[in-house]
Amino acid sequence: MSATETELGLIDAYWRAANYLSAGQIYLMANPLLREPLRPGHIKPRLLGHWGTSPGLNLCYVHLNRVIRDRDLDMIYVMGPGHGGPSAVANAWLEGTYSEVYPEVPQDAAGMGRLFRQFSFPGGVPSHVAPETPGSIHEGGELGYSLAHAYGAAFDNPGLVVACIVGDGEAETGPLATSWHSTKFVDPVHDGAVLPILALNGYKIANPAVLARIPEDELRALFEGCGYAPVIVSGDDPARVHREMAAALDGALDEIARIQHAAREEGATGRPRWPMIILRTPKGWTGPKEVDGLPVEGTWRAHQVPLARVREDPEHLAQLEAWLRSYRPEELFDQDGRPAAALRGLAPAGDRRMSANPHANGGRLLRPLDLPGFRAHAVRVDKYGTTTAEATRVLGGYLRDVVSANPENFRIMGPDETLSNRLGAVFEVTDRVFAGERLGTDEHQAASGRVMEVLSEHLCQGWLEGYLLTGRHGLFNTYEAFTHIVDAMFNQHAKWLKVSRGLPWRAPVASLNYLLSSHVWRQDHNGFTHQDPGFIDVVMNKKPEVVRVYLPPDANTLLSVADHCLRSRDYVNVVVAGKQPAPVWLPMDEAVRHCVRGIGIWEWASTDGGADPDVVLACAGDVPTLETLAAADLLRRLLPDLRVRVVNVVDLMRLLPPGEHPHGMPDAEYASLFTPDKPVIFAFHGYPYLVHRLAYRRPGHDNLHVRGYKEEGTTTTPFDMVMLNDLDRYHLVMDVIDRVPGLGGRVGHIRQRMADTRLRLRAYTREHGEDAPEVRDWVWPY
Amino acid sequence: MSATETELGLIDAYWRAANYLSAGQIYLMANPLLREPLRPGHIKPRLLGHWGTSPGLNLCYVHLNRVIRDRDLDMIYVMGPGHGGPSAVANAWLEGTYSEVYPEVPQDAAGMGRLFRQFSFPGGVPSHVAPETPGSIHEGGELGYSLAHAYGAAFDNPGLVVACIVGDGEAETGPLATSWHSTKFVDPVHDGAVLPILALNGYKIANPAVLARIPEDELRALFEGCGYAPVIVSGDDPARVHREMAAALDGALDEIARIQHAAREEGATGRPRWPMIILRTPKGWTGPKEVDGLPVEGTWRAHQVPLARVREDPEHLAQLEAWLRSYRPEELFDQDGRPAAALRGLAPAGDRRMSANPHANGGRLLRPLDLPGFRAHAVRVDKYGTTTAEATRVLGGYLRDVVSANPENFRIMGPDETLSNRLGAVFEVTDRVFAGERLGTDEHQAASGRVMEVLSEHLCQGWLEGYLLTGRHGLFNTYEAFTHIVDAMFNQHAKWLKVSRGLPWRAPVASLNYLLSSHVWRQDHNGFTHQDPGFIDVVMNKKPEVVRVYLPPDANTLLSVADHCLRSRDYVNVVVAGKQPAPVWLPMDEAVRHCVRGIGIWEWASTDGGADPDVVLACAGDVPTLETLAAADLLRRLLPDLRVRVVNVVDLMRLLPPGEHPHGMPDAEYASLFTPDKPVIFAFHGYPYLVHRLAYRRPGHDNLHVRGYKEEGTTTTPFDMVMLNDLDRYHLVMDVIDRVPGLGGRVGHIRQRMADTRLRLRAYTREHGEDAPEVRDWVWPY
Repeated sequence: MSATETELGLIDAYWRAANYLSAGQIYLMANPLLREPLRPGHIKPRLLGHWGTSPGLNLCYVHLNRVIRDRDLDMIYVMGPGHGGPSAVANAWLEGTYSEVYPEVPQDAAGMGRLFRQFSFPGGVPSHVAPETPGSIHEGGELGYSLAHAYGAAFDNPGLVVACIVGDGEAETGPLATSWHSTKFVDPVHDGAVLPILALNGYKIANPAVLARIPEDELRALFEGCGYAPVIVSGDDPARVHREMAAALDGALDEIARIQHAAREEGATGRPRWPMIILRTPKGWTGPKEVDGLPVEGTWRAHQVPLARVREDPEHLAQLEAWLRSYRPEELFDQDGRPAAALRGLAPAGDRRMSANPHANGGRLLRPLDLPGFRAHAVRVDKYGTTTAEATRVLGGYLRDVVSANPENFRIMGPDETLSNRLGAVFEVTDRVFAGERLGTDEHQAASGRVMEVLSEHLCQGWLEGYLLTGRHGLFNTYEAFTHIVDAMFNQHAKWLKVSRGLPWRAPVASLNYLLSSHVWRQDHNGFTHQDPGFIDVVMNKKPEVVRVYLPPDANTLLSVADHCLRSRDYVNVVVAGKQPAPVWLPMDEAVRHCVRGIGIWEWASTDGGADPDVVLACAGDVPTLETLAAADLLRRLLPDLRVRVVNVVDLMRLLPPGEHPHGMPDAEYASLFTPDKPVIFAFHGYPYLVHRLAYRRPGHDNLHVRGYKEEGTTTTPFDMVMLNDLDRYHLVMDVIDRVPGLGGRVGHIRQRMADTRLRLRAYTREHGEDAPEVRDWVWPY
Repeated sequence: MSATETELGLIDAYWRAANYLSAGQIYLMANPLLREPLRPGHIKPRLLGHWGTSPGLNLCYVHLNRVIRDRDLDMIYVMGPGHGGPSAVANAWLEGTYSEVYPEVPQDAAGMGRLFRQFSFPGGVPSHVAPETPGSIHEGGELGYSLAHAYGAAFDNPGLVVACIVGDGEAETGPLATSWHSTKFVDPVHDGAVLPILALNGYKIANPAVLARIPEDELRALFEGCGYAPVIVSGDDPARVHREMAAALDGALDEIARIQHAAREEGATGRPRWPMIILRTPKGWTGPKEVDGLPVEGTWRAHQVPLARVREDPEHLAQLEAWLRSYRPEELFDQDGRPAAALRGLAPAGDRRMSANPHANGGRLLRPLDLPGFRAHAVRVDKYGTTTAEATRVLGGYLRDVVSANPENFRIMGPDETLSNRLGAVFEVTDRVFAGERLGTDEHQAASGRVMEVLSEHLCQGWLEGYLLTGRHGLFNTYEAFTHIVDAMFNQHAKWLKVSRGLPWRAPVASLNYLLSSHVWRQDHNGFTHQDPGFIDVVMNKKPEVVRVYLPPDANTLLSVADHCLRSRDYVNVVVAGKQPAPVWLPMDEAVRHCVRGIGIWEWASTDGGADPDVVLACAGDVPTLETLAAADLLRRLLPDLRVRVVNVVDLMRLLPPGEHPHGMPDAEYASLFTPDKPVIFAFHGYPYLVHRLAYRRPGHDNLHVRGYKEEGTTTTPFDMVMLNDLDRYHLVMDVIDRVPGLGGRVGHIRQRMADTRLRLRAYTREHGEDAPEVRDWVWPY
């Protein structure tokens, strides 16, 4: 199947066409086929876009097209240097997909004109690869995630090959640097293959790329050390590079086929050495060699727009025209402006086109999860709050059944914390994927499995994004504080969803579900570094229609929330739940009703008789709910005449006005819960500001007093943690006394008793090294 | 200088002592020297801490002590597996530093008792390495930053060797994976050396470690590919491992000396292959081999507390006693409980002790920057706002002078964006450090320099943290949106500062200064992925005494703010500033006064005659200030009778009440600026919620209407960006009309004209591909 010279000639023509279309997008707003001499008026007023990476991306694309056709491959293309947006658009147009998806940009001269004009133009398309780009599951903005996305796409897709172009700049990022080790997590039997192509063009924006400037023996050693067999293709003579690239791709795909055959048919079990290609070609290859006497091709000056003053400088204009004509557009496009017939035949057909492959529009392939009834896992609660359970352990039982029912469609990712987060029941039915050496002392490690654990939140997130965007389902469980490690990745995914939801041709995908456990209030043992509930603050900055935050107060509400999240589409759901033994407040039926409402008055814990309380105790999160209920208990005993209402919030977005979030509630409903004018003492899981931010527009907001985490903590006991942050039951009672008008004067002695109790408990803890039984053993007594 | 058998015997004894002290901290609250039989009452009620990594850390520590003494090395110890807190504390106590820093924990039996009891105990010390730990610049919580910290410490410290233990779990993180490539950024002439020791003990919390499960040839290849010459030390026989480790360290330090001598004395210029050690010893080595019939030593079960039920289970208690006695404490500590004399002699003396090395308490070595007068760089402004400048380019001139005046004490880090962020003037006096191959087409690349650029925000941040914590100064310039990549690192550094500020023995260090440029409003060219102003939201969650956020509106205020930040200590300063041509509003003197106040009324732009405005136009950030001034201009012309006040905010923290931030202002001052009751239209740089979060407690808050970024954007024009987010001048005028009581009814036609103008401008942009001259060319006309 090696490529003939004729074939290579055609490939070169196709490549020239893609390069022409890439450069044309950056520069031209008219005269797309250069059928008249180039004039300043044909040039866009603002020249935006990245030329430097485009020729290399185009080279890979056209060569991959050949092997797709030759081998009838199911292949998608992940473009790490996604700033090469012109390349992705050019290829989608060349193979006809672009015009199918966007009929207003047909495959003819007018369409080419529109294609050029719209690029990086107001009202047009972005300069980077984006959700708008057919064939992409990978946005080109923030760098570093291409290879993790590629592996995520390959998992459980045994027939798929994911070609992943890794930029040499991107390769310097941390997430990318560790992504190479995905070789230890891919199963040649049940997963597809990833073919990484490291594009070493030598320069980033203004600096040399590190990997382009180490000796070739080091470069080889590095990738051999990551588990690959690298083949280097290098040069600046197109004909030679075409020959070498074709041979390298044939070799790599033969090797992938051999590896998969050995594993699938011959029972081979060792970890294979996967092929990869290192492509060394000049940055901005085939563009201007020099501009204004300075070298451009092959240097950092080719990164964006090599000729910057085309409208103003006749010499630049002439250079641009010569450059564009060097591709011989008259040979590449027919009279109507369509790609010449010989070129059109080079593109794969239908869904085999990388720009049309359904894996890159994963919602098209999405099968809903087969979800077992979560009620079967309900914790029995005969009396409110008197049963104890570890919420995530209960969830683990449910997830075990989800895994059983969805053996090829669902994965759980986590940075070495699935057991620590007490989801261990899943290991009754599955294992952790690990293709490294396995030893007798290991537990639940296997060549394939539904659980993926690697000590990299970046990899967990990147793999899961790739998995979801190709139409599957999953859950990322992680320590709450360290979710911030993927803040930036979350941002990008939320942006992707915001845009893709607006594209009718992009089918909805499963939501990205976070389970944040080992949360701030129970990081008493690991201390201050592990205490940060601020990920939800980051989440709240994204488009409301995309994000959801849930704080189930117990095991039963967690089950209900989890079921809801796993059914949802195109969201990011953040669920915060504890793993320690804690009261289960609500029987399952009530838990479901509470979660459907997302917020509600707990009448059974209130003493206002359903109306006109003196004070509202609100709470969100498991530990704040516990302290609030304990405070309600204290108030019943100490101030029996005080009418107290307890409100619990599961769905944080309900606090917003309806105009600001789809889950938002009207002011009238808000007032019916929180009252228009009574003090509200709100015990909150996270940073207290967040509640004010959600509720600042509410009538009565001035009466809202929020307790939450205020960056106080260390290695201590659980109750000391809440005391350090004034979230404890005794302080909540003091807050009530301080806030209910007229109360403070009458019951100063009770307030003092609370303060004394706190001092006594602090002293007890420091003496005994654990919390006093009176707080540890407290249960709701009514 | 190779170690004798006698010496190795002593080393083993020292190691046993450190292991004994490590285990003792985890378990004992009494009977520290086991002078009576172990009873349940001696055991802490809550067993917290990480044993698994401690023996390996102790082994490295004691062997490093030998080479420090032998060679009189200036060495610090960075403990990547920082959950091994007991090890760091044990060694600091053994060498006497702990008792010097904390006299309440003397080097005797009582002190040992206190040392044990306080560990992970309420009111005691954290379970991980922390600011409280003498000798540390690296907190052990979130993993992944040890090697970057180590290199940061080594830069510009030619006499220093930084031993850096990298955990095998940590090695899976992205930031650590790319940190190995720091070899391409270290200069053997002007920088010190980093000696990485990869601690492969095989398991993380519950999973095998990836690098422990690849063949040794792959492991070697990986690190050779990163530019190292790895030496593997492996085994579970202490005597043999001691011999091999001593030889490996001698070899490594000989090689470091040789490399430095060649570079410094013989003019060698090639990039050296730096030594590193891979240490393969069992996890929880010398601890219980089996517990309850399950293997523990050498497995993941040794990660935290190998014997968990010591108080309750007599067998566990007996096993613990046998384990502790296996170290023969009676040989290791004298009658008073002090380390035996022979052991004390093994520790280095004075500042050579790694726990006492001043580099690890960098404030002790801090020399203030020699700061040139920033006024020399002032942009001349004869009439408010009529001079145009690129703010960061002006700053670049100032930074050039800072670099010149501080050639060994100041570095600028950035992910390939120093030129893009227009700080290029620094290259008039320095270069970018790059030890990779350099080519003729490179510019400003050299073996040494003040600028460090690598396409990894993690590396930039980690290097800078290490550099600052060892007593130097610096600036991290980066694209605003991608600062989120280091959210988690920022969190940890802010936590470090919060704690270290409370430790009298920790001398203040230079602040961590961020310059966020290429910000949200001028990412019109890169599009939606590059638009995220939310890093400051993350910053605001940290302790107020540590964080500062500045939004200078122009070049002159940026100069003043930069000078202030470079002089400050123990803060994180975030400065957001644009790089595009923009009006300079204030002459330098006024700029300085404005920055000192942090907020102020711009009388020259106001029409309220200094009192009683109808509306306040507030602004923070350069683009919002421009739009606000343009709106003020429109209002003057369209509604000449309206009394408008313009308030500009530079220091965001001033919006907080004084109780919540040291920069906070009293309500009376707030009201004197914003009025108690008039509408305030606030044009804000970031997400609008943030302003509400800061100001929600202010009287008159209900009159505050904030415009900011609401996640709308794409590749378009600058003015279209502000229009997409309703932050543009015309929309601000519409907001004024809507909010000033009674105005809307009278001037509905003006509101309509504004709306029409916006539609016309949008259409112009979509037709011409650039903003209309009327917005591009607008200048403050009064």
